[in-house]
Amino acid sequence: MKNERVINAFEGFVVKFKELISEYEIDHNDYRELVNWLDRLGRAGEIPLFMDVFLETHALQEMYKNVKGTEPCLLGPYYIDDQKKIENPGVLPQRENEPGDVLYFSGTVRDTEGNPLANTKVDMWQADTNGEYSYFGEGIPEGNLRGVFYTDENGDFEIKTVVPGNYGVPTDGPSGEFLKWIDHHEFRPAHLHLLFQPSNGDRLITQVYFEGDEYLEDDVAQGVRGSLITKLEKHAGAEKGLDNDFYSSHLNFDLRLQDKPVFKKTIVNN
Amino acid sequence: MKNERVINAFEGFVVKFKELISEYEIDHNDYRELVNWLDRLGRAGEIPLFMDVFLETHALQEMYKNVKGTEPCLLGPYYIDDQKKIENPGVLPQRENEPGDVLYFSGTVRDTEGNPLANTKVDMWQADTNGEYSYFGEGIPEGNLRGVFYTDENGDFEIKTVVPGNYGVPTDGPSGEFLKWIDHHEFRPAHLHLLFQPSNGDRLITQVYFEGDEYLEDDVAQGVRGSLITKLEKHAGAEKGLDNDFYSSHLNFDLRLQDKPVFKKTIVNN
Repeated sequence: MKNERVINAFEGFVVKFKELISEYEIDHNDYRELVNWLDRLGRAGEIPLFMDVFLETHALQEMYKNVKGTEPCLLGPYYIDDQKKIENPGVLPQRENEPGDVLYFSGTVRDTEGNPLANTKVDMWQADTNGEYSYFGEGIPEGNLRGVFYTDENGDFEIKTVVPGNYGVPTDGPSGEFLKWIDHHEFRPAHLHLLFQPSNGDRLITQVYFEGDEYLEDDVAQGVRGSLITKLEKHAGAEKGLDNDFYSSHLNFDLRLQDKPVFKKTIVNN
Repeated sequence: MKNERVINAFEGFVVKFKELISEYEIDHNDYRELVNWLDRLGRAGEIPLFMDVFLETHALQEMYKNVKGTEPCLLGPYYIDDQKKIENPGVLPQRENEPGDVLYFSGTVRDTEGNPLANTKVDMWQADTNGEYSYFGEGIPEGNLRGVFYTDENGDFEIKTVVPGNYGVPTDGPSGEFLKWIDHHEFRPAHLHLLFQPSNGDRLITQVYFEGDEYLEDDVAQGVRGSLITKLEKHAGAEKGLDNDFYSSHLNFDLRLQDKPVFKKTIVNN
């Protein structure tokens, strides 16, 4: 039960917290206001939302600052495990007449030496064209735009889906109050979520963005990494026998099979 | 709406958070476990409890480290404002046959030069002999062992109440999990809460403890200050016409009328 890491990390947190109090002249009224706001945040169930939007990207940047291969990006609060297994190439589960432009998203999964990683488990999830996630947005079927598949013998995959919409953080709760205080809009650029679980290594959690998105530069969650931005190529529908024009994009994913944080060992005592 | 202090303090927090991640080698799994635990803490409504037990005392020590006069001590999560006005000398509102030993608690309220502060508003609240607070413990009438009074022309007061019991932090929720991780019992030494609101100055929030309490040395909330420990004097009941022996204790409260934090100005940029 006793957990030395919790004890040590909490002691460290207290030191940092006291430094913040001095450096920013936080007084007891400020402290009480902080407690009240955090209590409202917690009771509203917005702690995962707040942390994943406003802290997770910083945590990942610190953890993986010396990373080789594809950069990790935030998991976010909308990951749901154990989703439907689909074919590769295949179609991400979606409604009949799922609104939005059709997107064929493809990738090649390799190790950091460039060797293809066959039969690698991939979780993919995304918002719909309105920026809403299944299980969270109203009126969206369970499992919509979520699926699990495996790379082929060349490490490749291609999934038919729709171009996601810009996602907006809910603004009607305590996280929305925080947005007003920091004077920032609530939007994230459109993105796909991907979680790679190679059979012989550690997972990579990342996201894919699209060139030209109006929120790439000022993502509320500061999650965008240049290496994760893909080009949306427009195609005539006839190429795939579709009625309407469609899009494709592609990214190579280079997995560090030991996807552990790279900490500066010199800071710690062992 | 925009709040530069929030923006600056949050930026500062992110820097400290990243330092913690490096220094304690917190990885993404740790981060996700932290988010999950904080979410449970928040949904259980235990954020004020957790912060006031495990952080407030450190915040106050940092804010008031150069304090003159009586030391502040944690407000805690059990303060309720707008309680019943009582006489001075008077009796703290309580049940008929309120269980526990009778206590006459008296104080003299002065400024830091030793001048008495007459007609100073005092809020007093406490746990009952079982360590339970009204509004929080079950079966206790609203307002029990809570009252508001004013010092007399000499800055004195004397309130009849009962000796409080040791208070135990609830152990059945996420705060209790934390207690197991840090391998600490859940108890605080018995204490009285006092909040002084002078008409011509800022408030003092503090607590009073009692010599000999078994938890003075390892208060779960680390709230004890030597200067706040009083001696419980035992008296024969006959002295006050009571059937049973009773206790008295006394403390002088020296209020800084500008009860603002004393920050090291050299740290900040203005």
